[in-house]
Amino acid sequence: MVYFLGVDAGGSHCRSRLTDQNGRILGSAEIGAANARIGIANLWPLLMQVTELACQEAGLNKNDWSSVHAAFGIAGLSRPGLQRALEDMPSPFAAIRYTGDDEIANIGAHRGHDGAILILGTGSIAHIRIDGKSETLGGYGFPISDEASGAWLGLESIRHSLRAYDGRIQKTIFTERVIHHFSDDILGLVAWMDAATATDYALFAPWVIEAGIEGDPVAYSIIQKAVAYIENFIEVIFQKGVARCCLMGGLAAPFMPWLSNHISCKLSPSQGDALDGALILSGLKF
Amino acid sequence: MVYFLGVDAGGSHCRSRLTDQNGRILGSAEIGAANARIGIANLWPLLMQVTELACQEAGLNKNDWSSVHAAFGIAGLSRPGLQRALEDMPSPFAAIRYTGDDEIANIGAHRGHDGAILILGTGSIAHIRIDGKSETLGGYGFPISDEASGAWLGLESIRHSLRAYDGRIQKTIFTERVIHHFSDDILGLVAWMDAATATDYALFAPWVIEAGIEGDPVAYSIIQKAVAYIENFIEVIFQKGVARCCLMGGLAAPFMPWLSNHISCKLSPSQGDALDGALILSGLKF
Repeated sequence: MVYFLGVDAGGSHCRSRLTDQNGRILGSAEIGAANARIGIANLWPLLMQVTELACQEAGLNKNDWSSVHAAFGIAGLSRPGLQRALEDMPSPFAAIRYTGDDEIANIGAHRGHDGAILILGTGSIAHIRIDGKSETLGGYGFPISDEASGAWLGLESIRHSLRAYDGRIQKTIFTERVIHHFSDDILGLVAWMDAATATDYALFAPWVIEAGIEGDPVAYSIIQKAVAYIENFIEVIFQKGVARCCLMGGLAAPFMPWLSNHISCKLSPSQGDALDGALILSGLKF
Repeated sequence: MVYFLGVDAGGSHCRSRLTDQNGRILGSAEIGAANARIGIANLWPLLMQVTELACQEAGLNKNDWSSVHAAFGIAGLSRPGLQRALEDMPSPFAAIRYTGDDEIANIGAHRGHDGAILILGTGSIAHIRIDGKSETLGGYGFPISDEASGAWLGLESIRHSLRAYDGRIQKTIFTERVIHHFSDDILGLVAWMDAATATDYALFAPWVIEAGIEGDPVAYSIIQKAVAYIENFIEVIFQKGVARCCLMGGLAAPFMPWLSNHISCKLSPSQGDALDGALILSGLKF
């Protein structure tokens, strides 16, 4: 028997999927965050754990691992030295490949064919793949990058709400909602900011979308600014010469209705998820 | 003899000035940062140190301190409990008052009369004083606030430079200069961001101004956005009912030529510095 394993190791969760050579799913698993930021000494055991959980479900023991062709997509793999360090680890598999989590998402979305994806989640990043060569746009991190991401929407929400609190712009139901969330305590908001991560800011993203739908002028202006970034992203992606582009991530669906027709009609639906992409990379023929 | 002491305790330096009852300067001193963020246990000895240095220069020993009327302007004094904690400290002075560093700057700028100031430095904050009552606009911290500040200019510089690096906007001499500063190493730039403070971002502020003067379109667009914030700040300040407003801080002079005439003609020159303000608050008649 030959087996195929795909792993998607990201900032919020790490998932695995094991199939036979016909693509039949034998086992799958999910654990918490396992990305490059935690360092290889912490990352490697987690990658093995999520692998073992999927193998257990499939009834495979460790002797069978030598029949497994594996591919791992890892968030933040571009950190200096990490790819090399992973390749230096003793592999229990028949074959093993590593790449970024954005690349497996792209491969999955287009079933291995050339194409591009724009991921709109806590962060935002575009990934373009032409003749097996990869390129990214954005995704450099918050707050220097990742326009139109959840974290960016959250930061803009707080900025606008403080301006409204000052009387520098008009107060709206949305800006009041944000300030009330901090119990109208601006010093508390400042203390919150001192420790806030991109994930904390991204909690406000659904609020912006919801208020925008209700017609709140401040939320609407933030969404319009995000839409301008997204449409520019998509234009630049097509200028790179790809034929297909998918919008992905938790904010893809909420933003779709806001895009102009001449942009949204260029977008393609995704043909698979990131684990499909990792399985293709591991050698599975779909 | 009666003496007057003013202290300006800020995020980057802490200064003191001692005068006689005629306003003649007898001593002055400057030490490093001494603001509310470091906590009262660290702050109090620094306030006493900068006082002692000015008194030594004036030839005063500690027995003379009981003839000193003192006022301290402290950055971040609004942190919960700090004012009370300072007032509970045993005072060696004839009289002692505490307020924010923005308030003493305002009092100094208008020689104790009602007025407003907009401080454009590493951060930005407006302070308005009418009938002895204070109000502030902005100044909630970076990155949620402090538009048009040095830190804000720096963040915008990096954001635009990364967009240009991606090909999402046109590269210019300015965006290339910013990327070259990080040795064209985007991963290095991301690592820098992980640890960067408002002060680190503010290092790019003079670059934006300089490139804007040279006509660089990206730097120019950042300056125009900052100018819109500054002009809105000033409009809102005058709507509060003050007759005079001064632009202050390290970025005041660089921004003056960019403001429209109908705004800049409303601005007044400053009549004194923050230490003058603290001395007025301590009871000195100018």
